Amino acid sequence: MSLVRVHNFAVSLDGFGTGAGQSLEAPFGHAQHRLMQWFFGTRTFQSMHGEGDGGSTGVDDAFARQWGPGIGVEIMGRNKFGPQRGPWTDEEWQGWWGDEPPFRTPVFVLTHHPRPVLELKGGNTFHFIDADPAQALAMAKEAAGDLDVRIGGGPSTVRQFLAADLVDHLHVVVVPIVLGRGERLWDSLESLEQRFTIEATTSPSGVTHLVFDRR
Amino acid sequence: MSLVRVHNFAVSLDGFGTGAGQSLEAPFGHAQHRLMQWFFGTRTFQSMHGEGDGGSTGVDDAFARQWGPGIGVEIMGRNKFGPQRGPWTDEEWQGWWGDEPPFRTPVFVLTHHPRPVLELKGGNTFHFIDADPAQALAMAKEAAGDLDVRIGGGPSTVRQFLAADLVDHLHVVVVPIVLGRGERLWDSLESLEQRFTIEATTSPSGVTHLVFDRR
Repeated sequence: MSLVRVHNFAVSLDGFGTGAGQSLEAPFGHAQHRLMQWFFGTRTFQSMHGEGDGGSTGVDDAFARQWGPGIGVEIMGRNKFGPQRGPWTDEEWQGWWGDEPPFRTPVFVLTHHPRPVLELKGGNTFHFIDADPAQALAMAKEAAGDLDVRIGGGPSTVRQFLAADLVDHLHVVVVPIVLGRGERLWDSLESLEQRFTIEATTSPSGVTHLVFDRR
Repeated sequence: MSLVRVHNFAVSLDGFGTGAGQSLEAPFGHAQHRLMQWFFGTRTFQSMHGEGDGGSTGVDDAFARQWGPGIGVEIMGRNKFGPQRGPWTDEEWQGWWGDEPPFRTPVFVLTHHPRPVLELKGGNTFHFIDADPAQALAMAKEAAGDLDVRIGGGPSTVRQFLAADLVDHLHVVVVPIVLGRGERLWDSLESLEQRFTIEATTSPSGVTHLVFDRR
């Protein structure tokens, strides 16, 4: 049975999954790179970015590398795709990831403003769809075949899929910083823990990995 | 040099240090006992409540027992003392802890409605003072002599002392539940981490202990 998975989703102690003020220059807003610092040090990240065999291979990397295997489709929110809001004024924008993004699968981007399919190298085909979580998941599962579907973020997208009880596996990385503003992951998810078993693991980098598996 | 310490302060994943709807029957509101379940299992808790040598002696207990030694005074917010709000309508109320509370030191209760000193057994003398954090701390330090001062909670009291940069040691226990409502610890504390070194330790009970020490 194919699963719906979330990986490497970092939040601050106060539960923000991204900072305030996202822009072209600041994809994570005022959080800058602080939520993802633990990830940059891993071999998983460094090999995704062509830096060879560098990077740590400890617990952060062990979690980070779960991200890819078995995934057939990613669903992401529009704010993960880019900083534009409202109707597209610049369809030249192809995401943050250059001409060969790291997903290597079809990607469904949730937006109230559909636009034509965008095909980039390496199997990265972006579909822009106006759909609720259940509808989007049905489309994604069809495209994924027997493989799993990853919910890629940002916070409001992950939160909506959790609220709709569509997530089977959730990996959250709690980073010991207090952001104060931005977009919260946990809002409106009261008693979420009742639907999951939860395991916590700390890392020498200072973060805590939380793994939620559907009961 | 005497320190200002916070111990055994539990928060949910979404940062709530207490639930919504505190009352005589529900000191933690809708959170009930879920934030303190990790503590009830420890030998520290069980020996405080006369249950002898029962309870765990692992990492939860190792953290829990730091609570007492070296403390000369506790400062608490009024909502930790009891569920009444506004002018005291019932001065018979002597706190949640019976006639011999576990503090065994002077206790300063922050309130806009001072009332006479309340002396209970075991050195538990409650002073009700209308003071800001710095003023309260000055009074507490004088009463504590060379010993440390503990900030006992609730969330808004701890938050105010953190905001005023008056805390030297902060032990927070992150409990893997999503409360959704209540009183948040981390609000208005953006960039708090810059003033502390932070270490995280998980426990078999499922909680994560965070220790903040002033840099």
